[in-house]
Amino acid sequence: MKKLINDVETLLTESLDGFAAAHSDIVTLGDEGRFVRRSELKKGKVALISGGGSGHEPLHAGFVGHGMLDAACPGQVFTSPTPDQMLAAAQAVDTGAGVLFIVKNYSGDMMNFQMAAEMVDCDNETVIVNDDVAVENSTYTTGRRGVAGTLIVEKIVGAAAERGDGLATLKKLGNAVNKATASMGVALTSCTVPAAGTPTFQIGSDEMEMGVGIHGEPGRRRVKLASADDIAAELTGSILKDLSLRRGAEVLLLVNGFGGTPLLELYLMVNAARKVLGGAGVRAIRHLTGSYVTSLEMAGCSITVSAADDTTLPLWDAPVHTAALRWGM
Amino acid sequence: MKKLINDVETLLTESLDGFAAAHSDIVTLGDEGRFVRRSELKKGKVALISGGGSGHEPLHAGFVGHGMLDAACPGQVFTSPTPDQMLAAAQAVDTGAGVLFIVKNYSGDMMNFQMAAEMVDCDNETVIVNDDVAVENSTYTTGRRGVAGTLIVEKIVGAAAERGDGLATLKKLGNAVNKATASMGVALTSCTVPAAGTPTFQIGSDEMEMGVGIHGEPGRRRVKLASADDIAAELTGSILKDLSLRRGAEVLLLVNGFGGTPLLELYLMVNAARKVLGGAGVRAIRHLTGSYVTSLEMAGCSITVSAADDTTLPLWDAPVHTAALRWGM
Repeated sequence: MKKLINDVETLLTESLDGFAAAHSDIVTLGDEGRFVRRSELKKGKVALISGGGSGHEPLHAGFVGHGMLDAACPGQVFTSPTPDQMLAAAQAVDTGAGVLFIVKNYSGDMMNFQMAAEMVDCDNETVIVNDDVAVENSTYTTGRRGVAGTLIVEKIVGAAAERGDGLATLKKLGNAVNKATASMGVALTSCTVPAAGTPTFQIGSDEMEMGVGIHGEPGRRRVKLASADDIAAELTGSILKDLSLRRGAEVLLLVNGFGGTPLLELYLMVNAARKVLGGAGVRAIRHLTGSYVTSLEMAGCSITVSAADDTTLPLWDAPVHTAALRWGM
Repeated sequence: MKKLINDVETLLTESLDGFAAAHSDIVTLGDEGRFVRRSELKKGKVALISGGGSGHEPLHAGFVGHGMLDAACPGQVFTSPTPDQMLAAAQAVDTGAGVLFIVKNYSGDMMNFQMAAEMVDCDNETVIVNDDVAVENSTYTTGRRGVAGTLIVEKIVGAAAERGDGLATLKKLGNAVNKATASMGVALTSCTVPAAGTPTFQIGSDEMEMGVGIHGEPGRRRVKLASADDIAAELTGSILKDLSLRRGAEVLLLVNGFGGTPLLELYLMVNAARKVLGGAGVRAIRHLTGSYVTSLEMAGCSITVSAADDTTLPLWDAPVHTAALRWGM
């Protein structure tokens, strides 16, 4: 296992210490690194809290800050955070308007966030993200998985929270954005979880895993490596089928790297995905390209399409200041 | 070779097409993809032009926009752009105040930029970046290599150009920033140049290349994989020795991934590098962490330290709006 680490046991806390030091202008680390929170809270604003296993950086801590999350709870690599982390985060960032939990649909995350929601003594609601169209049910999941679309939900709902929308409105918006957002990914290589020390899965030098999950979970099928255009056709085609977009629809296109894929290739995938969208009469009017929802050093990418409308587009464009997404300020 | 591509021959143009489409609000592609330029130019502002082989994305095209470059010339992967690319870029973005070329110190880049400088019919100057302290002379280089520090030169000089500084002032500033900036990297794996199809170098499963170049050039020595703290001590120690910083000095710390290293590890390296800096009485007051000057999918990272002062810090902090760096707007 080749990694820039000192000790598997302290990997996460050392990384969080580096993160908090690098972004001390916007975030503070909670006690014992149980959560990352905004340094400055806004009185009367609904607090957005997300979290999940580490190894997907910059998700979620990289999205804490003005216009997105108020706190993120990092679990160990590919392991759910505990209910007490979420409880501590909620107590730290609730300013009286309640808490909205944004949870990716994995059994562990769902169970622990639900326990936290029952324990927390302020108003709270939960938005569940399940944007991955690759498979129904999977390792760690009942139903569809929550993947890169999560950042779109966090951005749009975060902007609405920042302008003062209430808890019920935000939950409704989050559910709507989740429904309007679909993703699918492909892996060319496996990642290696530090505590395991060996690759999560074996894959031939001429193979890819079509529909892979962000923990290296199996996708739809293992096939021979195909061209970027063929890959984009399957990923984007599956997404379009799920979203049932009309011709003329406008969308946000996120081409997301899993951690080991060069930006050179991701932009080529943008070009490939745009051709598929164009063929369906769908126009990408906003783009985000980079490694935002990763699987450690896995090579591969996912494509996410999110239908844009007059409600969501201004919220996507609204100012944001986090470690990983920043514009307008 | 596992890559998200259609054809090695069209890889670069397809990727540039995706890039230009994704960032059509700020950049335009020159004829035949010879350069990427700002869509809107500012009359009377010195134009900053950089470029180099592709495969280091987001460098340089990702740094074209307000507050940084006016144009970037992408060569084929790890291959210098041609003089006619630079000439065409200069003709496209010069608005009468002249052109400053920012060139990484590689023989091919140096020769081609020099030819362009002789051909171009406007005032022009060149800043050469050679921040890599690992080795004197190397494959492709006489003298020290230009690596991740290049982005710091481009950001600081770009901000000065934006506020209206003249050509001579900018050249002097660029030289000063280059001198105040030092970098060194380590590779855990090789990358594979698409046209070659096989890894650039062979490396054992328990080895690393200390002092590696951004094309996979040999560094100081091939050694057994060490802990993050030991790696940070050697990289940061070599940098501090080169910069001869006094105790109490304030610096900008860039921990740069080479393309295949997770952000989780990069932030751990931030933490490790800060410990070394702290031990030398040097304080990191600005941080940039991510894969900004890459070597395709190579695993590893570089550390860059740039001395900050009252001249350079406000320029670093000044608004920037490019594909890869954006703040203040």
